[in-house]
Amino acid sequence: MGRVTARRRVVRTGPDGTQHARFDSLAVEEPLEVRLGTEVLNVTMRTPGDDFDLVAGWLVAEGLVRETGDLLSASYCQGRDQDGRQTYNVVEVRLEGDAGTSRPARSTWTSSACGVCGASSLDAVSVTSPYDVSADPLTLAPGVLTSLPERLREAQSVFERTGGLHAAGLFDRDGTLLCAREDVGRHNAVDKVVGWALREGLLPLHGHVLQVSGRASFELVQKAVMAGIPLLSAVSAPSSLAAELAETRGLTLAGFVRGGSFNLYSRPERVRSPAGR
Amino acid sequence: MGRVTARRRVVRTGPDGTQHARFDSLAVEEPLEVRLGTEVLNVTMRTPGDDFDLVAGWLVAEGLVRETGDLLSASYCQGRDQDGRQTYNVVEVRLEGDAGTSRPARSTWTSSACGVCGASSLDAVSVTSPYDVSADPLTLAPGVLTSLPERLREAQSVFERTGGLHAAGLFDRDGTLLCAREDVGRHNAVDKVVGWALREGLLPLHGHVLQVSGRASFELVQKAVMAGIPLLSAVSAPSSLAAELAETRGLTLAGFVRGGSFNLYSRPERVRSPAGR
Repeated sequence: MGRVTARRRVVRTGPDGTQHARFDSLAVEEPLEVRLGTEVLNVTMRTPGDDFDLVAGWLVAEGLVRETGDLLSASYCQGRDQDGRQTYNVVEVRLEGDAGTSRPARSTWTSSACGVCGASSLDAVSVTSPYDVSADPLTLAPGVLTSLPERLREAQSVFERTGGLHAAGLFDRDGTLLCAREDVGRHNAVDKVVGWALREGLLPLHGHVLQVSGRASFELVQKAVMAGIPLLSAVSAPSSLAAELAETRGLTLAGFVRGGSFNLYSRPERVRSPAGR
Repeated sequence: MGRVTARRRVVRTGPDGTQHARFDSLAVEEPLEVRLGTEVLNVTMRTPGDDFDLVAGWLVAEGLVRETGDLLSASYCQGRDQDGRQTYNVVEVRLEGDAGTSRPARSTWTSSACGVCGASSLDAVSVTSPYDVSADPLTLAPGVLTSLPERLREAQSVFERTGGLHAAGLFDRDGTLLCAREDVGRHNAVDKVVGWALREGLLPLHGHVLQVSGRASFELVQKAVMAGIPLLSAVSAPSSLAAELAETRGLTLAGFVRGGSFNLYSRPERVRSPAGR
């Protein structure tokens, strides 16, 4: 449980064709199944560790949990594998006001009706957030924004060893890091951060900034909006739908945040120098 | 339909805080729903283009299609969005020997039984391949392997413009590129390549090499094995479960293929100089 890296024998081959065996650390990837009663809500491939936060954050993103009290409990399944070991790969949750009956996480993803066809692509896959980030009065100094990727990297404990993990970090408007998490899946790293914030009673995350180590997809914008975060910053490129959703929901989306420069794809007025220039 | 990039107004901010508006190209991301009869098999976020290949490759990876004749047809849903436009975001498929009845793509992902718990993590999420890649006699010269990332980059038409796309390329043992595809999702790029190969009647892909632009996850190894590909090469790191599955299935997994060097995580004997040194 909680193995974040695994040692493995590899054959290293140099430019001259010479080979030698050595041991390398790899980022651990294992499946995690989320159950509500007898229903499987989700199976995700993740890096073990902070599993309950991962599940809690995912439930927030799916609109099944809004505040701390909505998640009554999360616990590992008591089952064993064929060798009699607890696998820690199944988490059972109980939700407020739910008797364990079937409850689709995102109806358009599981419906057999004409879910996407006949609706705009954005409507079909987005979940309505309980929080309105468009009115968030957050402003951030450009120098604070450009410092976030390096601050997140400093907090990353595992990436340097394996090169295989995505990271997500939650910052306040002064650039102070509140929580950083890593995972083989970029979505999981964000879920772990949001799950931590739920546990700390910090939702909605008004006035906060979410920094991610890679690209900004539609789903990452979605997760930020569902947690009430008004600014998402990515080291790499956003997708078209990420920018569209950010614009529609009133979230500030920053991309290519590297080398002191960055692009703002929506709501650029939130990033300005303290003098208001 | 088929929009791969979208122009969008962005505010570029330099290191000195100066801002100016300009237009940038973003990689397009849109949902694609796959239907079998009235059943929704999958919804994926993808870059439009090669949609039927994407669906075909995904069906191969899920074990629902083995050869060209298994996929009777794939066509866009005739529905319209609220503005009366065809969205091209729903593909309906017909499969050989299937009357459109419910047929779980991957039983452990949808089952309400104890799917993961009680089984080893690998067994729980892997699909049995119709092809045995472990006996594939492929050998590849180290110099050919190290040339593949650059050859794939040369074939990438969109990445340079957007910085937001993953790529996958299918090569023969001489390093000749047969097919390259891009997508916002790394799994989709591989599905598009495998779907192309299915359409060309090339499955199983004995003796071929799959090069990917990013990291190697469990699911990419799974997709390679399901298509009969004996060697998967990644520019970045593999996960622990990717290496484990590669070892178990007898696939050669190469990672950190950059700057003339690389690591081999399984079946290293397939990569050797022609003289047999």
